[in-house]
Amino acid sequence: MPSPRIAITFCTQCRWMLRAQWYAGELLQTFEGEIGEIALVPATGGTFRIDVDGEQVWNRKRDGGFPEITELKRAVRDLVAPGKSLGHADRVGPSE
Amino acid sequence: MPSPRIAITFCTQCRWMLRAQWYAGELLQTFEGEIGEIALVPATGGTFRIDVDGEQVWNRKRDGGFPEITELKRAVRDLVAPGKSLGHADRVGPSE
Repeated sequence: MPSPRIAITFCTQCRWMLRAQWYAGELLQTFEGEIGEIALVPATGGTFRIDVDGEQVWNRKRDGGFPEITELKRAVRDLVAPGKSLGHADRVGPSE
Repeated sequence: MPSPRIAITFCTQCRWMLRAQWYAGELLQTFEGEIGEIALVPATGGTFRIDVDGEQVWNRKRDGGFPEITELKRAVRDLVAPGKSLGHADRVGPSE
């Protein structure tokens, strides 16, 4: 199985497939040379979780709601490509 | 790793990400209760391949181009849910 592996586990009953696909597309475009695969994992019960090689970077029930995309990219970057610049997604401050 | 696993391996240089995402969405909606995961696997060199639990159901270089969606769903169904009806996608004949 290609590595690093990102898994997006989402509740299908909650109709979060397009949301999961959107996150997958954002991460694929940003990290296409640095990740092995992104898996979409259908689940139930209000689950929305993003794991990188088994490490939980987001859990809706733990973290509250859904990640802001720049925040998610920074968390993924720190694990798969620590030296990579994310351009404007790296700029955090009063104007964010 | 959830099973059955569908892997869509696609050439990023060829800009096939949206195509891969579209196939992933179609398969997720049709088989959400029957598959464990769909992985999007970035690759290079004109690769476009769809595997179900390691079995190659489509290979652009072997099969020529890209699968018609009903044909792909029938091939996946035969492997992961042989008894499942696909409705109009099951009707093949002169009118297709």
